[in-house]
Amino acid sequence: MRRIIKKILKKSPSSDQDGVFFDKIHTILGFKPTTLRYYEKAFTHRSANKLDDKGNQISYERLEFLGDAMLGSVIAAHLYNEVPSGDEGYLTKMRSKIVSREHLNELGRDFNLIQFVESKVNPQHFGENIHGNIFEAFIGAIYLDRGYTYCEKFIHNKIIKPYVDIAKLEGKVISYKSLIIEWCQKEKKSFKFDVYEDNGKEGMKFFGVKLYIDEKVVCKARATSKKKAEETAAKRAYFVFQEKISRKNN
Amino acid sequence: MRRIIKKILKKSPSSDQDGVFFDKIHTILGFKPTTLRYYEKAFTHRSANKLDDKGNQISYERLEFLGDAMLGSVIAAHLYNEVPSGDEGYLTKMRSKIVSREHLNELGRDFNLIQFVESKVNPQHFGENIHGNIFEAFIGAIYLDRGYTYCEKFIHNKIIKPYVDIAKLEGKVISYKSLIIEWCQKEKKSFKFDVYEDNGKEGMKFFGVKLYIDEKVVCKARATSKKKAEETAAKRAYFVFQEKISRKNN
Repeated sequence: MRRIIKKILKKSPSSDQDGVFFDKIHTILGFKPTTLRYYEKAFTHRSANKLDDKGNQISYERLEFLGDAMLGSVIAAHLYNEVPSGDEGYLTKMRSKIVSREHLNELGRDFNLIQFVESKVNPQHFGENIHGNIFEAFIGAIYLDRGYTYCEKFIHNKIIKPYVDIAKLEGKVISYKSLIIEWCQKEKKSFKFDVYEDNGKEGMKFFGVKLYIDEKVVCKARATSKKKAEETAAKRAYFVFQEKISRKNN
Repeated sequence: MRRIIKKILKKSPSSDQDGVFFDKIHTILGFKPTTLRYYEKAFTHRSANKLDDKGNQISYERLEFLGDAMLGSVIAAHLYNEVPSGDEGYLTKMRSKIVSREHLNELGRDFNLIQFVESKVNPQHFGENIHGNIFEAFIGAIYLDRGYTYCEKFIHNKIIKPYVDIAKLEGKVISYKSLIIEWCQKEKKSFKFDVYEDNGKEGMKFFGVKLYIDEKVVCKARATSKKKAEETAAKRAYFVFQEKISRKNN
């Protein structure tokens, strides 16, 4: 009985549309959003001309400022812990690479955040930076909604783990795919990248790639483009064969 | 009995010197430090030539990077919440004023952090920026020692509350002391700033000031200089008489 009352009292999405939005945000976050209003704000362009009850304009721009700061401190702490030998200059340089405009745009695009944007004009006309801007605003919304710890959790699980590769950022590895190909050729091993999944959906595409070495599947990876899935599979293979590869290359 | 065992098991400072350092850090923080090593690092200059067990140089420079990031995100969140009408440009500008080199140097000096610096040369020869640099490193140490929440708590209680005045940063109020003096003269009220406390200690000076208006004490304030204590007392008086003052000035 108590559980039923609790369920009734619990704020539920006010409409089906809210329910769909909730589910999509939930999927991206990997945990439940509490106050959808923050996420709605993160996707509201100033052209939508929306005002809050105090007459202040609602747009993602302020949240962008907040998200940028949160991203900055989470990435700073990650680099500090991950690279104990890096001095202040190194840490500063690596962080700017991670939060570069280009990289933020890529992240926003990969999460397909533009599908949520509310504006008077077609968001596709805003230019490339809209992706990075709403991505930062989204981080700001997570902070307001669930606090620093969840914001940090999201950045770790959904950005640092899949996207931040220190060896690549240092320029030590340009492409894991070429490393693997080079190694296979040297070792006279056959290799093949095979697309086993392509959901074909516009906007939220997903590809699955298997990497065969000597006719055996050694790794799989899924990503938003074939190129990225291949690179991730190659990176995984690299870590499997790391010792052998570095012995060969040195 | 259990309490005695607990007391024995509890890590205690390994020497009297550590005990003094612990107490001083405890006083500045307003809560207990857990791992003193982080704070020691925050005050170690590269000239001390200290290495950790992996051969990495110990100096405050890496912690400075971390502290700067933490300060940036806590101040960003504070401004976001405090000024709902400020756009992204305003928020960015206000934050840079708060974390300006000059302001950080002032904070480091007020906390007298230089007393802790370990170096081969006299830290007084490092120039003005040493104060701000070790202040940032100190914030980084708090983050490593107690996590984001305590770091935020410290920044709120010890920096934002006593030092961050948005009206002043916006240039709307240059000096509360002049505002009060001007108002008293207009209103034909007598006023007097009276130093009732001066601990006279070099390094960690403290002054207490009482503000009398028409022979009555209206406010008191304590600070690290007479000027600051007067300004804070005047600010408090301003908020007491705010309505009357703004009626008179408009």
